[in-house]
Amino acid sequence: MESTSPESAAAAGEISDPIHIRRLELSDHERGFVALLSQLSACPDLTASEFATRFAELAAHGDDHVILVAEDPSAPERRILATGCLFVERKFLRGGGKVGHVEDVVVDAAARGGGLGLRIVRRLVDIARDAGCYKVILDCTPELRAYYAKCGFVEKGVQMAVYF
Amino acid sequence: MESTSPESAAAAGEISDPIHIRRLELSDHERGFVALLSQLSACPDLTASEFATRFAELAAHGDDHVILVAEDPSAPERRILATGCLFVERKFLRGGGKVGHVEDVVVDAAARGGGLGLRIVRRLVDIARDAGCYKVILDCTPELRAYYAKCGFVEKGVQMAVYF
Repeated sequence: MESTSPESAAAAGEISDPIHIRRLELSDHERGFVALLSQLSACPDLTASEFATRFAELAAHGDDHVILVAEDPSAPERRILATGCLFVERKFLRGGGKVGHVEDVVVDAAARGGGLGLRIVRRLVDIARDAGCYKVILDCTPELRAYYAKCGFVEKGVQMAVYF
Repeated sequence: MESTSPESAAAAGEISDPIHIRRLELSDHERGFVALLSQLSACPDLTASEFATRFAELAAHGDDHVILVAEDPSAPERRILATGCLFVERKFLRGGGKVGHVEDVVVDAAARGGGLGLRIVRRLVDIARDAGCYKVILDCTPELRAYYAKCGFVEKGVQMAVYF
């Protein structure tokens, strides 16, 4: 892990960075959150009701399920520019240990190259550490190994899947 | 996926198979469940109270968190011979889709080679399908690719990790 957090990096010289990273809010349905996810995977839009239902289901997990989003508060519509998710899995092994799972990291095509995704992933890793997780894991394509290495991730295994 | 489930295989000719696969119960703490997990990862024993607390936390997830165990009901102490876990992650993408995560699959060293692990994994995959998941994923070492291929899994990516 780099020892420099996004916050301290900002303090050191990125004061003018206008991007704000915060937890997902219900109103982000109107700020293009689902459309952003469609840049990652098949993602038909959800009605406001469907979005609210899923939001409430996930909110019930409290700090065991965190979705971060990046926005530019000064932009006219405050569209969501990037997102990433962390959920905490509680286990019996490792003395009743916890594992953080990072999922659904995506940066809007027009906002890539500025380090937003890394800022979000580093923040998620910090949250997992603070929650007492003994590790954080994620799955990605081989091409993204170097990207996640910038956040301290090392390759540990292979991801296998069954699609229905 | 093979079309033959463990149950129909049993019906076809394994009637004498004494092994019973069921969900984890609180009393499995006394049947060596934690000791079995220690064959997979560092796993100090938990007190009865610690075990009960974690059991209750996971039970609160209902069918979104399933731990299966295999036991021989005719064995003197009914020690747990194998286990595997499935948790269901709810997402916003894929129309509010669900993903099954298979974790912590382990077969007791003395019970390996009999297909117990595959029976458990197939059952977990069936549960995920019935729960409406659009996929099931797991992470493993490269050596286990062929093992999980027997349950219909194909390699999809790499697993990355940060250890604290």
